[in-house]
Amino acid sequence: MQLGTCYYPEHWPEAQWEDDARRMAELGLTYVRVGEFAWSRIEPEPGVFTWEWLDRALDVLHAQGLRVVMGTPTATPPKWLIDRHPDILAVDENNQPRRFGSRRHYCFSSTVYREETRRIVTAMAERYGQHPAVAVWQTDNEFGCHNTILSFSACARKRFQGWLEKRYGTVKALNEAWGNVFWSMEYRSFAEIDPPMQAVTETNPSHRLDFRRFSSDMVVEYNRIHLDILRRLSPGRDIHHNYMGCFTEFDHYPVGDDLDIATWDSYPLGFLDQSRYSPEVKRYYLRTGHPDFAGFHHDLYRRVGKGRMWVQEQQPGPVNWAGHNPAPKPGMVRLWTWEGFAHGAEAMNYFRWRQAPFAQEQMHAGLDLPNATPAPVQTEVRQVADEIARLQANGLPRTQQADVALVFDYHAQWVFEAQPQGRNFLYFDTVLEYYTALRELGVSVDIIAPQDSIKGYRAVVMVAQAHVPEALAGELTQEQTPVFIGPRSGSKTVSLCTPENLAPGPLQALLPLQVIQVESLPDGVVEPVLLEGDAAGSVVRWRERVVTELTPLLHFDNGDGALFRHGNAQYLAACVDGDTLRNLLQGFLGQADIDTTVLHKGLRLRRLGNWLFAFNYGQDKVQFAPQGQCLLGSEEILPADLAVWQMDSEA
Amino acid sequence: MQLGTCYYPEHWPEAQWEDDARRMAELGLTYVRVGEFAWSRIEPEPGVFTWEWLDRALDVLHAQGLRVVMGTPTATPPKWLIDRHPDILAVDENNQPRRFGSRRHYCFSSTVYREETRRIVTAMAERYGQHPAVAVWQTDNEFGCHNTILSFSACARKRFQGWLEKRYGTVKALNEAWGNVFWSMEYRSFAEIDPPMQAVTETNPSHRLDFRRFSSDMVVEYNRIHLDILRRLSPGRDIHHNYMGCFTEFDHYPVGDDLDIATWDSYPLGFLDQSRYSPEVKRYYLRTGHPDFAGFHHDLYRRVGKGRMWVQEQQPGPVNWAGHNPAPKPGMVRLWTWEGFAHGAEAMNYFRWRQAPFAQEQMHAGLDLPNATPAPVQTEVRQVADEIARLQANGLPRTQQADVALVFDYHAQWVFEAQPQGRNFLYFDTVLEYYTALRELGVSVDIIAPQDSIKGYRAVVMVAQAHVPEALAGELTQEQTPVFIGPRSGSKTVSLCTPENLAPGPLQALLPLQVIQVESLPDGVVEPVLLEGDAAGSVVRWRERVVTELTPLLHFDNGDGALFRHGNAQYLAACVDGDTLRNLLQGFLGQADIDTTVLHKGLRLRRLGNWLFAFNYGQDKVQFAPQGQCLLGSEEILPADLAVWQMDSEA
Amino acid sequence: MQLGTCYYPEHWPEAQWEDDARRMAELGLTYVRVGEFAWSRIEPEPGVFTWEWLDRALDVLHAQGLRVVMGTPTATPPKWLIDRHPDILAVDENNQPRRFGSRRHYCFSSTVYREETRRIVTAMAERYGQHPAVAVWQTDNEFGCHNTILSFSACARKRFQGWLEKRYGTVKALNEAWGNVFWSMEYRSFAEIDPPMQAVTETNPSHRLDFRRFSSDMVVEYNRIHLDILRRLSPGRDIHHNYMGCFTEFDHYPVGDDLDIATWDSYPLGFLDQSRYSPEVKRYYLRTGHPDFAGFHHDLYRRVGKGRMWVQEQQPGPVNWAGHNPAPKPGMVRLWTWEGFAHGAEAMNYFRWRQAPFAQEQMHAGLDLPNATPAPVQTEVRQVADEIARLQANGLPRTQQADVALVFDYHAQWVFEAQPQGRNFLYFDTVLEYYTALRELGVSVDIIAPQDSIKGYRAVVMVAQAHVPEALAGELTQEQTPVFIGPRSGSKTVSLCTPENLAPGPLQALLPLQVIQVESLPDGVVEPVLLEGDAAGSVVRWRERVVTELTPLLHFDNGDGALFRHGNAQYLAACVDGDTLRNLLQGFLGQADIDTTVLHKGLRLRRLGNWLFAFNYGQDKVQFAPQGQCLLGSEEILPADLAVWQMDSEA
Ligand SMILES: [Zn+2]
Ligand SMILES: [Zn+2]
Ligand SMILES: [Zn+2]
Repeated sequence: MQLGTCYYPEHWPEAQWEDDARRMAELGLTYVRVGEFAWSRIEPEPGVFTWEWLDRALDVLHAQGLRVVMGTPTATPPKWLIDRHPDILAVDENNQPRRFGSRRHYCFSSTVYREETRRIVTAMAERYGQHPAVAVWQTDNEFGCHNTILSFSACARKRFQGWLEKRYGTVKALNEAWGNVFWSMEYRSFAEIDPPMQAVTETNPSHRLDFRRFSSDMVVEYNRIHLDILRRLSPGRDIHHNYMGCFTEFDHYPVGDDLDIATWDSYPLGFLDQSRYSPEVKRYYLRTGHPDFAGFHHDLYRRVGKGRMWVQEQQPGPVNWAGHNPAPKPGMVRLWTWEGFAHGAEAMNYFRWRQAPFAQEQMHAGLDLPNATPAPVQTEVRQVADEIARLQANGLPRTQQADVALVFDYHAQWVFEAQPQGRNFLYFDTVLEYYTALRELGVSVDIIAPQDSIKGYRAVVMVAQAHVPEALAGELTQEQTPVFIGPRSGSKTVSLCTPENLAPGPLQALLPLQVIQVESLPDGVVEPVLLEGDAAGSVVRWRERVVTELTPLLHFDNGDGALFRHGNAQYLAACVDGDTLRNLLQGFLGQADIDTTVLHKGLRLRRLGNWLFAFNYGQDKVQFAPQGQCLLGSEEILPADLAVWQMDSEA
Repeated sequence: MQLGTCYYPEHWPEAQWEDDARRMAELGLTYVRVGEFAWSRIEPEPGVFTWEWLDRALDVLHAQGLRVVMGTPTATPPKWLIDRHPDILAVDENNQPRRFGSRRHYCFSSTVYREETRRIVTAMAERYGQHPAVAVWQTDNEFGCHNTILSFSACARKRFQGWLEKRYGTVKALNEAWGNVFWSMEYRSFAEIDPPMQAVTETNPSHRLDFRRFSSDMVVEYNRIHLDILRRLSPGRDIHHNYMGCFTEFDHYPVGDDLDIATWDSYPLGFLDQSRYSPEVKRYYLRTGHPDFAGFHHDLYRRVGKGRMWVQEQQPGPVNWAGHNPAPKPGMVRLWTWEGFAHGAEAMNYFRWRQAPFAQEQMHAGLDLPNATPAPVQTEVRQVADEIARLQANGLPRTQQADVALVFDYHAQWVFEAQPQGRNFLYFDTVLEYYTALRELGVSVDIIAPQDSIKGYRAVVMVAQAHVPEALAGELTQEQTPVFIGPRSGSKTVSLCTPENLAPGPLQALLPLQVIQVESLPDGVVEPVLLEGDAAGSVVRWRERVVTELTPLLHFDNGDGALFRHGNAQYLAACVDGDTLRNLLQGFLGQADIDTTVLHKGLRLRRLGNWLFAFNYGQDKVQFAPQGQCLLGSEEILPADLAVWQMDSEA
Repeated sequence: MQLGTCYYPEHWPEAQWEDDARRMAELGLTYVRVGEFAWSRIEPEPGVFTWEWLDRALDVLHAQGLRVVMGTPTATPPKWLIDRHPDILAVDENNQPRRFGSRRHYCFSSTVYREETRRIVTAMAERYGQHPAVAVWQTDNEFGCHNTILSFSACARKRFQGWLEKRYGTVKALNEAWGNVFWSMEYRSFAEIDPPMQAVTETNPSHRLDFRRFSSDMVVEYNRIHLDILRRLSPGRDIHHNYMGCFTEFDHYPVGDDLDIATWDSYPLGFLDQSRYSPEVKRYYLRTGHPDFAGFHHDLYRRVGKGRMWVQEQQPGPVNWAGHNPAPKPGMVRLWTWEGFAHGAEAMNYFRWRQAPFAQEQMHAGLDLPNATPAPVQTEVRQVADEIARLQANGLPRTQQADVALVFDYHAQWVFEAQPQGRNFLYFDTVLEYYTALRELGVSVDIIAPQDSIKGYRAVVMVAQAHVPEALAGELTQEQTPVFIGPRSGSKTVSLCTPENLAPGPLQALLPLQVIQVESLPDGVVEPVLLEGDAAGSVVRWRERVVTELTPLLHFDNGDGALFRHGNAQYLAACVDGDTLRNLLQGFLGQADIDTTVLHKGLRLRRLGNWLFAFNYGQDKVQFAPQGQCLLGSEEILPADLAVWQMDSEA
């Protein structure tokens, strides 16, 4: 449990560096990230390197015992490089270049930029790979930020054709996999295939899905360029990449497989404002963020990092980039920090040390005010540092496997973006609703990928898992692990076609039923589900018609079955509202012998080893008294406050 | 009264064809459309034709007695053709090509594509023009789908200049007709004239109107390429084109003049979702569609087809392309089918035989499930087939001229798109409101073009008939046919200018009044119309100030006249809400001696010869007992059900 | 106090000109604007001038004693000129040309167009510079209409680089001023700098601000081309440009500095429809316009014209260009006309004499109907002319300095467009809210630029004055003039960076406080301000956290200070709703010893010398009886009516 921050020595007079470093150390910080946007200061002219200022900055930080996270500066190639090689720029779906002037102005497929990346990363790693201050490397910064994964450049077109050839072998196989016969979309060679762009109406969804997969693989390839160099020139250092919240444009699992740690950038208030929650929900959590936003991502990135997770950027005050930017309620920065640790974070790093007085992010708060005086939030950071120091005397617990696994799949997101069928159906939001229902029941959750084993879990939950791998279906059948399956699962083959045996495809081995019709419903249409004729919940947005011999547990208003059970597996043939979902999952978990309790509004629990954390995101004072010894806080938890108990029982 | 479907043998294993054909015949289907997207299978390489599979497919269908509707495959030129001639692609108003990857990726003006069309249609007609299975031809597919009428290509620019020269003779005449002096927009030659695109602000509305007319004429020319070949090589076969619903981008009348039958593609639920009806209306009719959607189009396309009308694609279940895609209420597919016949359809063909498991429309339901088992809807189709068989024993009635003619004009749509004056004023929706008011009064309606004679009609209704041809005004004056004229009628010359005598232009021969001012009102502004000081209805969206010697029948709140009558003609100087409109039209029809009755919500009647149909789109059970013999159903009509009576009286 | 209109002889048969001129004179009009869109009639072929028709038109007007306002025709270069020099066209931010077909299709930076402008203006001035009918010149027409200030053309890029070099001297200074180190955005030379366009995400806000300043300066330069020629060839004539309402894309003050008169085009109903007022407000003022729209602009343009202001285009009926276009309530055209005079207008000119029957503005009402008969509004114009004639017998008063100055700054608008921080924060609307609050208190207001002296004012109000010039801060400190400062004032340096001493920057000399955090709040979040614990108003949209030794006058709900006072200066650290703002300003003005009274809804007062005008925009009859002699109207003011008193006291 370490604290840290992000620092840009190039933004400040050198005279200020030493005082900054000293105050960081005094505040209890360990990690300091530097370097990730500094290319124009490292190489101000082509081939002319000016390392000296960065050498001195590292020395200053090192002298205070701070550990440096060194970022490669590839998110911001300088103007001279773009002017020399304009084909570095990505091209948007309107066939326009995405020009210099901000950041991330490069195409992952660009051969020139891959070469330039090798050049600058090698130079940096040669200079600092063995530097005693450098503890960790960060590759680039926030891959995909500002929707930069997809590029429709000539380079991308060429690589896409090669990627397709590798995947399908023959163009005939591709035509069959995509169903290109449909509208005479058949190709005679891979060289005929363009990215899906500027078409008259929607392109083949299989075409779009493969372009998403290809684009995601380009990120994997691009990240490996960094890794190969850093592994070689800076052995023994951990390498991470800082992912973002609510971001699904590339598959994070394979990128994470190559890294040592998954880190992510957590801005609870900014993300709430940008989210699709109702205005009422947004007002209620205005200065706390939604109680499941950070938790969900901690759990997701713990999986992406194969157990190792950091927050590389933690919101310390108002940000600049959301539509509206309120300030965290006093206490929330401490709460978010502890919540990260509760979910397994090894380090919680605040972005940024000092608010910049210039350029795009001058309205983004830091731990320091622009005038180099401490912002009030430093008292919360100080408090966390003190609390960690006190608690670690008796040893800190470590993350263990949770009882419940929730499946999250980037490819399912792409499938339903390519073919939503209902405008209000969103994969990410749907999974998040399931997460919320589980968390409102007091359950700790592991997020798993569809390719993962479910061994050790006492219950598995999935929803809209478009393509269910045979292995997952097989393991579920073999292990008889209780599984709750939401609508649209198993509805697609790996090529985004309808399975020969219809949905839920391979899950029919678990549950003998077939989906023969689906309906999407506009917002405002709310239809009942019935338990023996009585209202038992509300259907919204999505509804399926199922044929089966099974006796339904719940019915729709027309008598069709809505919820089915077979052995330990349940299938819900609709989207339902939050209360309904929580009730159904509580029933399911009960059958799986997992304890649940409906928590007070805004309260969340999290087990970490034999510690139990309780976080109060709500506006009420909450009483909560588990069986255990209170380590932090008390049985009365104020809004924006937390409590920690050492529990009598394990897990 | 025939049933049919759409079949894509190229999508399925050949081994399945025979079973499909047999089951179609057994279900009571007559027509099967094939071929319209099959170019890449017919000519997989330039000049290499592979007819054999299609020969065999036709043989299989023929063997079951099915009659083939053969579509020309020009809606989907293959990739090799586009790569050879990229100038086939249409160009959008942002000067971007509309690329390959879906369908309809061609410019109607493209000289190359016209030549290619001649080549492929000739080849197809040579092969199948005399084939015994081929009963009917379809040209292309859904001209204009995905907004593909307008193209701003170099070809379009060139042809537009020629079209203008033909229309105006001299550029001076054009400058005067458009009023180009206004902002120094005068041209010195036709070669200076561009399509209206990328201008700083709105271009001259007369310029835009002529570009719409030109673009519409390109469709007529393009369709004739097909017709010339098919008439020559496949004599004796009817030729149709399948138009769409709610589509006004080209003038359907002249295209229809060249064809034998007008067919259209009816998707009541998809169109309701895309419509501008209120959320309440959309919820009420969620699984039935709006009760006037299909009827309006049947009546419109009966006119386009000069009396001969089919539905070529009838929705059989949920579709894939609307924002939300619910399933038809059980009974509705039967209801829609009978409603088509009641409005004069010769054939009702379901789209499609089997739901595709791949590509863009894999979520579009068919009569078969993707796994080649019947969808539940087949029982409704079977029921209609049985009912027709039973009823036709005594002879089926034929469409007769209705009492009431409602004018619909594609050019008026373009006029008010070019110059709406109020953002919420929409020509199509306004005419549809008038249609609804008439139909809620139990009246059967013929839709006529403004160039049509009104002979034989007992009443004529028009609204927003921007340009009133002299002939129509003259015939109305001469015949003294009762006519109800809504606002904005006669407000424009043929060139989209203000008439010298102001609105309603030539209608002043009928009604001595002048419109000297118009107002458009935002949604939410509702103002009363008064009958001798008492509220008599509500004005919305549009209001006119009239000078006249006539004594108004109704007044606005400021004392100005709102409704005027002179002889058999009435003029309404405002848009009014639905209830007001129904009341006013009921009064008007009463004066024209036409019986009306305000129907129960969702009920619609339709006369076909001496049969009277009643269709219940509503959610209530309705009692309805006309004077006649009940042929189908009963006096109690359930929701999603219908009844048919043989009436004592004619018409 | 003169009346006038706009006339296009080129639109009408020459035979009609004399009757038109005679009727204008009889109606009481003095000024007639001609020529501003007539280039294609003046020079129909390159170099071929046809002055004769315009000579005759001027003679006809002159014969009736009318005074001509001659417009240069540069807003509408003809097609032949564009085809010869396509680089005249502006380029939009998507890198697309803004083509011919409407008007204003030129780039202010275009070297070719500047040359062409010199040519045509010289020709016109040589022809008419000494013409006895020509009393006034107008340069071009509505600079910036249709968002035409910004152009991203090659010419603009080149001139922008030169402009930057002139401003910063060295690229190093520019990099520092903009903070380009932030994301490696540093440039090595001015030649590397592009306009801010097509970037991946937001460009540096300082970059955007300077591009706005540059683009504004191009307007100044372009306008001077006209002035240099007209001053030389038409000495003794006043020169004006007709600005628009609600328009902030260029800095109007320096353009005005070069002119003799500032005129503007006042369309109260069109602007209300396009405004961001709530639907309720829009319905209430549907046919009157908002009561502060015209007044605000009169006061603003009086400053732009250094005391000399006209309305060059006054709405006389429904317009064509708003989303919805209602008609003015009878009486409003007279009210608007008198209101213009009350705020200091020298002339009120109606747009246009006769409604055109063709082209883009055929639905725009005029004083005449298209058929050359008077529209009913002429009776109101006649009434004003008569009233002026009656009142001027005793001499007309002149504008004097108001008690209260409100600061308006175009650069502040650009700062907050570049960096709004809250989506619902709009500078223009915020200043207008302050104006409304002052006017609801019965106060007459002068609008001043931030570079103006505040000498003579008894109170100064500013809000969101992003960059406060040292001179203004200094004068406020020295004069101890009571000043009310709204949020975000002094929050930026001239380069759009955070001041070293934080906000409110140089105003800290007046008020010892610092803003250390800001919050933007979504619509719907309403938080109280408290006076000794009791509710005293509502915070919306914006809230600041202030550190200071001062005792707050008001608090936020968390105990932080909301309103501060030090000496004669007050600082409000939030946006508040309209009622709250009016209360706070009433308190402030009371302390400044300025009389206020809360007026009846829709009533507005205006002092002009010793006359007091009262205008009733509301829907109620209002009683209003000041101490004075009633010159016009009475103590009971009907809706859409006004009254004028000669007051006993001066100002
Ligand atoms: Zn970040
Ligand atoms: Zn279709
Ligand atoms: Zn104007």
